[in-house]
Amino acid sequence: MIDYLALAEKSPSDVRELIRAGEWDQPTSGLSNGHTQANLVILPEKYAYDFLLFCQRNPKPCPLLEVLDTGDPIVKLMADHADIRTDIPKYRIYKNGVMHSEVTDLRPFWREDFVSFLIGCSFSFEQALLENDIPVRQIEEQCNVPMYRTTIPCKSAGVFQGPMVVSMRPMSEEQAIRAIQVTTRYPSVHGAPIHFGNPDKIGIHDLGHPDFGAAVTIREGEIPVFWACGVTPQAAVMASKPELAITHSPGHMFITDQKDTAFSIM
Amino acid sequence: MIDYLALAEKSPSDVRELIRAGEWDQPTSGLSNGHTQANLVILPEKYAYDFLLFCQRNPKPCPLLEVLDTGDPIVKLMADHADIRTDIPKYRIYKNGVMHSEVTDLRPFWREDFVSFLIGCSFSFEQALLENDIPVRQIEEQCNVPMYRTTIPCKSAGVFQGPMVVSMRPMSEEQAIRAIQVTTRYPSVHGAPIHFGNPDKIGIHDLGHPDFGAAVTIREGEIPVFWACGVTPQAAVMASKPELAITHSPGHMFITDQKDTAFSIM
Repeated sequence: MIDYLALAEKSPSDVRELIRAGEWDQPTSGLSNGHTQANLVILPEKYAYDFLLFCQRNPKPCPLLEVLDTGDPIVKLMADHADIRTDIPKYRIYKNGVMHSEVTDLRPFWREDFVSFLIGCSFSFEQALLENDIPVRQIEEQCNVPMYRTTIPCKSAGVFQGPMVVSMRPMSEEQAIRAIQVTTRYPSVHGAPIHFGNPDKIGIHDLGHPDFGAAVTIREGEIPVFWACGVTPQAAVMASKPELAITHSPGHMFITDQKDTAFSIM
Repeated sequence: MIDYLALAEKSPSDVRELIRAGEWDQPTSGLSNGHTQANLVILPEKYAYDFLLFCQRNPKPCPLLEVLDTGDPIVKLMADHADIRTDIPKYRIYKNGVMHSEVTDLRPFWREDFVSFLIGCSFSFEQALLENDIPVRQIEEQCNVPMYRTTIPCKSAGVFQGPMVVSMRPMSEEQAIRAIQVTTRYPSVHGAPIHFGNPDKIGIHDLGHPDFGAAVTIREGEIPVFWACGVTPQAAVMASKPELAITHSPGHMFITDQKDTAFSIM
């Protein structure tokens, strides 16, 4: 069994190598601490324009970090020598909007018409939160971050539409104020929260049962704070039903070589 | 003759109405002060994916504000009741990368396969510069902002490649420090400068002869400060030679209903 905390100190390429070798298939929050993590969406080329436009129209949940050329599984900007088919712990294959299977290696499924989209992830600002003494509960509890479908609609683009998905971190009001300041600096990895305090207002009625990921403890005196989440494209895939789509498994991200600080604008 | 300074106080819809009526065909810097202005690129649908990807890969010069649906000339997000074919003072039609004509009304040229891209413009942070007592020389001198081709290559995407174009504003070193702080807050309208002080280093050898727009006075004790510019797509069109492309005429922008402050992240 690999020690979760030891992986926090390892380089992105070392962690990707473990993942590629099949030795880590768990969530990646807290791994290669200080390095940006990314969501993945793979679509056949015929959906690529609509999806690119969907991301452009919904930059808060879908901040694009890199789009690979058609048929090319090799990451160019965000990492050196990374293969998008093997370097993520777990993938989900969706057929007609329904999850068909979860796999750890995409090579048997790869097609020449696949376009891969890497989308910013809120894990990228968690190191900055920790440095500001703001708790990141799912790291403390070593589980996946809780994610919820909201009733906030995304702007549609071609065939793609769907609700915004959010990640949630509990904290005190004072910590929330500081968290808003800190995450504002990271507009390309979801930036400032989109809501806090009143989950019903955005259509979340039971914090104990997230739609993706795991529930975390909300302590007395804490409020839930919600950030737009890169799982939003998966909700769009489920709502829009393209015949084929592949994503990372929620919480199981692509770890880039980029430092989180590179995405801070000040 | 319409008074230039009076237009600074007019609403975006009032100024667009004057433009639509053919009563204003001059540069728009300083008009409807405090409202965001946008660059325009129109391409046939077959180029739309490559161009959208070009913008995604070059967010500093090409920050996308809105992409209209194919064939639709009506702006949806950035303005109410604006027609992209009539509401810009002057357009340039490029054929195979060469400027073919300059027109003030696109309606005779419109096609059902046209996709229109609105791209952020540095005019959007000029009000914030003025409020910080930073000079905006082309407003003082009532001329078009000077723009230069650099030797900084953009990241290519499909058929599109080309050099980054920059706009230039002269100021003191102290003002440049403040200008960096102020414009950092506006990442979706080019954000912080990309260079200052040494134009040769980015391939600009004669500030007196800009590639687009007009030269402005550089006073003693001032240095040139360069921002990535939304005319970059025009340079990409000239370098990449799609059979047809339409843009705004440099400096003659689309004036949106959005307040500049809406694009400030803090």
